[in-house]
Amino acid sequence: MAAQRRGLDETTLIRRYFQRPASSRRDVVLGIGDDAAITRLPPGLDLVTATDAIFEGVHYPPGTPLRAIGHRSLAINLSDLAAMGARPLWASLALSQPRARAAWLREFAAGFFALADAWQVALIGGDTVRGPQGATVTVQGAVRRGHHIGRSGARPGDGIWITGHPGDAVAGRLQLDRRGGSRKLRQSFLYPQPRLREGRALAGIASAMMDISDGLHEDLGKLMQASGCGAMLDLASLPLSPQLLAAVGLEAAREMALSGGDDYELLFTVPVRHEARLARLARGWTVPATRIGTVRKPPGLHWQLEGSAWTPCTRAFQHFG
Amino acid sequence: MAAQRRGLDETTLIRRYFQRPASSRRDVVLGIGDDAAITRLPPGLDLVTATDAIFEGVHYPPGTPLRAIGHRSLAINLSDLAAMGARPLWASLALSQPRARAAWLREFAAGFFALADAWQVALIGGDTVRGPQGATVTVQGAVRRGHHIGRSGARPGDGIWITGHPGDAVAGRLQLDRRGGSRKLRQSFLYPQPRLREGRALAGIASAMMDISDGLHEDLGKLMQASGCGAMLDLASLPLSPQLLAAVGLEAAREMALSGGDDYELLFTVPVRHEARLARLARGWTVPATRIGTVRKPPGLHWQLEGSAWTPCTRAFQHFG
Repeated sequence: MAAQRRGLDETTLIRRYFQRPASSRRDVVLGIGDDAAITRLPPGLDLVTATDAIFEGVHYPPGTPLRAIGHRSLAINLSDLAAMGARPLWASLALSQPRARAAWLREFAAGFFALADAWQVALIGGDTVRGPQGATVTVQGAVRRGHHIGRSGARPGDGIWITGHPGDAVAGRLQLDRRGGSRKLRQSFLYPQPRLREGRALAGIASAMMDISDGLHEDLGKLMQASGCGAMLDLASLPLSPQLLAAVGLEAAREMALSGGDDYELLFTVPVRHEARLARLARGWTVPATRIGTVRKPPGLHWQLEGSAWTPCTRAFQHFG
Repeated sequence: MAAQRRGLDETTLIRRYFQRPASSRRDVVLGIGDDAAITRLPPGLDLVTATDAIFEGVHYPPGTPLRAIGHRSLAINLSDLAAMGARPLWASLALSQPRARAAWLREFAAGFFALADAWQVALIGGDTVRGPQGATVTVQGAVRRGHHIGRSGARPGDGIWITGHPGDAVAGRLQLDRRGGSRKLRQSFLYPQPRLREGRALAGIASAMMDISDGLHEDLGKLMQASGCGAMLDLASLPLSPQLLAAVGLEAAREMALSGGDDYELLFTVPVRHEARLARLARGWTVPATRIGTVRKPPGLHWQLEGSAWTPCTRAFQHFG
């Protein structure tokens, strides 16, 4: 990690929390501490790279636990790798903070490394700068050569599937500063779990995939547009969690599931001939996979409820700042 | 580039300036527009990754030309690759800005891509967020397997060399808001040229290398510490530019060369047996290479001037903000 523009104390603090004795990964030839990291990709693999930034007041409200911020900064990037069917390898972190405080760095690092360790991701470098609280992470991963799952492969007739319970994250976010409420909903926002295992298992099964970060309806539109298709969707099949239904009721739950954002679940399409394989696979998952519709040739998203056309309310949920 | 948290206009603007029709690089399997980028590294190469951020008020003063910020955000990262002896391949950009303005994006992109195109670097992805003006860039490059030049290989007796004219950049920075002054000095700060050609040529010649970003004296200390050595340095041999000498005089020029920072020149050590090869090589360079001292076994940096010990004044030059 470059020690640019920083006093000795700050350098020491950052070393203490981010520079670990040695990487557990043998493919890291040279990690933090030089001008750049040197890593080694096994033959037969393509490199997969994603970059995402989160900042206070934009992506999380002031007062969000620092451990959660560390977790999320990495999780949203791992979710991008999951959506390609890739496995993660290495991460770089550019940390922005008003000033270096031991408590801040310790908690952020605890959240970041708990998730990194769970997936054997090595932190190989980065930078720290003075600025508003936030973090920009770049993750690198690998996928078998030519076997990534992009957004453009959906075909008419394919089923449309999602993992998990969309809407939980936004409901959790709106509950952050309230007493009571559902811990599960809050955790969905604070500690999204990247669906890496599920994403990799879908190689050879899913025809197209992406992660839901901007809301199911908006992201569905992107997936269909990239594939040159449209979709017929069944509102009643939306997998709404009991916690979400209990917290906000059916109508708001549907609205949150469609346009809430921050879900970091997988949205994917599966040819009908692979549905039996998917069903077998998904039995071993800790997160449900639910079919919510069918890819069609005509463009556009068409929602149905009990046989009638239904128009979603697409108002965006307010952000902070 | 993820379209997260952003209206349609902003997405359109960003597409216009950053999403180019197709990459000129055939090793980019999937570029901007999906969840992650897919790239292909030829066999026999190690991957080299560097991340650096620049923000207004910290790394450049308010009012710095936007084109220069675009250039610098990439240049400081390419300089890290140069310091490993690597060649650049791909870049990811996380752009932070108070709000999307066409003029801002156009000028930033012009500076970024002019440098990217000069080195055939493909922009493969990134993110844009609302925040203070700044940019975090991750560059990926390659080096022949096991042939990177790290910081730890300097050995007693090796010569210590630098490229270019240290001190010019800080002098240029201090002149930014003044009329008159030297255009060459200002350009040194605004448009640092990554020494990629020189860095690669030094493979097999240099025993250790890094780029100077925090000031020659401080960075020399890091190089020697990483190598477990010290250095004897000759102040009179510092390659001070005529423009720097004319602008600030000999004493201040020396001080700026030693602790100015922002130079982005290469600092490297060369075994004496390779000096003839280096001399032949350097004749083809557009930037001079100058020997400024010798690696010694005892730790610490010892500057000499006309045979007497000389203690550098190591005050840091003030930053902005």
